Amino acid sequence: MAEFPFAIAATEGQARTGLILTPRGEIATPAFMPVGTAATVKGLLPSQVAQTGAGVLLGNTYHLMLRPGAERIARLGGLHAFMGWSGPILTDSGGFQVMSLAKLRTLDAQGVTFKSHLDGSSHLLTPERSIAIQADMLGSDFVLQLDECPALPAAHTLVENAMRLSLAWAKRSKAAFGERANQALFAIVQGGTDPGLRRASALALVDEGFDGYAIGGLAVGEGRSLMLDTLEATIPHLPQQKLRYLMGVGKPIDLVESVARGVDMFDCVLPTRSGRHGQAWCDRGPINLKNARFQEDTNPLNASLDCPASRDFSMAYLHHLVKAEELLAQVLLSWHNLAYYQDLMARMRCAIAQGRFGAFVSAFRDGWAGD
Amino acid sequence: MAEFPFAIAATEGQARTGLILTPRGEIATPAFMPVGTAATVKGLLPSQVAQTGAGVLLGNTYHLMLRPGAERIARLGGLHAFMGWSGPILTDSGGFQVMSLAKLRTLDAQGVTFKSHLDGSSHLLTPERSIAIQADMLGSDFVLQLDECPALPAAHTLVENAMRLSLAWAKRSKAAFGERANQALFAIVQGGTDPGLRRASALALVDEGFDGYAIGGLAVGEGRSLMLDTLEATIPHLPQQKLRYLMGVGKPIDLVESVARGVDMFDCVLPTRSGRHGQAWCDRGPINLKNARFQEDTNPLNASLDCPASRDFSMAYLHHLVKAEELLAQVLLSWHNLAYYQDLMARMRCAIAQGRFGAFVSAFRDGWAGD
Repeated sequence: MAEFPFAIAATEGQARTGLILTPRGEIATPAFMPVGTAATVKGLLPSQVAQTGAGVLLGNTYHLMLRPGAERIARLGGLHAFMGWSGPILTDSGGFQVMSLAKLRTLDAQGVTFKSHLDGSSHLLTPERSIAIQADMLGSDFVLQLDECPALPAAHTLVENAMRLSLAWAKRSKAAFGERANQALFAIVQGGTDPGLRRASALALVDEGFDGYAIGGLAVGEGRSLMLDTLEATIPHLPQQKLRYLMGVGKPIDLVESVARGVDMFDCVLPTRSGRHGQAWCDRGPINLKNARFQEDTNPLNASLDCPASRDFSMAYLHHLVKAEELLAQVLLSWHNLAYYQDLMARMRCAIAQGRFGAFVSAFRDGWAGD
Repeated sequence: MAEFPFAIAATEGQARTGLILTPRGEIATPAFMPVGTAATVKGLLPSQVAQTGAGVLLGNTYHLMLRPGAERIARLGGLHAFMGWSGPILTDSGGFQVMSLAKLRTLDAQGVTFKSHLDGSSHLLTPERSIAIQADMLGSDFVLQLDECPALPAAHTLVENAMRLSLAWAKRSKAAFGERANQALFAIVQGGTDPGLRRASALALVDEGFDGYAIGGLAVGEGRSLMLDTLEATIPHLPQQKLRYLMGVGKPIDLVESVARGVDMFDCVLPTRSGRHGQAWCDRGPINLKNARFQEDTNPLNASLDCPASRDFSMAYLHHLVKAEELLAQVLLSWHNLAYYQDLMARMRCAIAQGRFGAFVSAFRDGWAGD
């Protein structure tokens, strides 16, 4: 392994702000990673994504290995060149999507065999194959171990078995990854919402030693309260100096609450997905632009954001585009949402650095009117 | 009326290149106008459209009067402010769409009553109402008279009656338009593919006197040869010093052939529509990016175009986006196509200015492999 330098600049309670230094660019933490599932952040050019302040993107191994294929991306020079993103990229291992999207899957200790949701073709994903795809073919900067992530709620035995299998796969992933310059390997803590299992998973993985630790298997229906409890049961068992990445989270309030509990990295499809469905995010929650009250509202979404989508178009115009089901509605709202998310992260970093994050969290909770 | 200065800089045969000087910006001719039907050039930001070199957009009165409504756009400051386009805008009169899109329509000398294709609501469009919508509510720079445009082929009597009605409506439009600073009124020559009717229409409209002359009712299924014959039967009857605008045309080869016959302005949905369907235009015709031969083609669409969509992404990547039905495919291909169209116009202008347009047309015809 070859971890990137991670310099923690300030802490407040469990929250911390810092900088990850990678050869492809610096990443300020806490960081939100826009999701570029199929080698594109849906609807946006890489330059537009970069303009929001995003320092790192997430790519989905499952989608890319099926289309256009990992070998093809490798022949085309890797994922960065293929999609025109020169900054760092984190890839997931494919495990979560295999479990939730693939048509038929057979799991054993070796790995998981599945049929593509696109064309029914058969594939085998093992810890070693996932590492090879991510690290060698896609050329990912942050590589994730293959894990098993059971849907919650699930029986304790099932959750424990998945955690144990993920642990075994973490070791195989580390062996397959070996020593690499300029690429980092993250393990994934599992264990559902059981504090004991989470603790055991975290301790065993830390004992093995990884560049960073993802927290997987959350935001899958357990609810915010249980998710935050689980973070509190997990993060104290992770090393202070290593990165913590909460996978697939979340709404703005989730980000604030999780940063308060020590999370450094996030990814979520929400800003782009809700943007494609006529929703814009702000500190109070989502705004549904389809609502008739915006018909003649000449205000922009957020004039303080340095993003054309947030600043240069009236809500009346956005309302019209949403009603008319125009492509530009999807583009502008996705872009605004990413700009809002990046700005929220920047405000949190600033609050932590200035020792006023506690007040920030209180104010944010008070202002939040969403779910 | 208050025509914009139109300075013809060079001519070669019937072709000419020049400059329209409007308070909202200069337009080099021959000019291609991207279509912004519903107050948006589909999928693109105004800044991206401007970056292709487009100097003027087209808006559709029919669509805008139904959604969000002409009165609403007026209250919001006009079409330019509403959609964030500061350059000139030409609007059609709504006639063509009423004839082809509205559910039920009743035409009489007064105007046309129709039901909206969106919600079935009833509307009356008259020459006077169309002028009021375009010139007063939308704030269009180039205003078009309401016309009747019969679908071809049609009986001679029907075509002649539509031409006569359009002529009567032209006079009413001129009266309704009155004297205006900084807005121009175009009449529309009708008459199907009948040279005699076209001549009669042109002469009568010229006798009335307008800022420019649109040629309507073509590119509606009559075929390229008949369309070009009709241009040749029409344009010699239009004044040399006035603008000629061929409505709804067309493919690159159509633009080249029509410029050779003296057309100054064009609009067409083709570049954006075909872009949304995976097609990219070049001098040989359309390229279908879905074709498997682009799977590993690392060339960009056109490295010589100063457009990120044309220059910065491989055809392999575009092929992937099209196959994956990604939004970004629609955005990038629409953008490339508009950049290609604008570049084609610029190359024609340059060839005319340099007295080598004849050779340009010959070479273009020889290279053209499309329909």
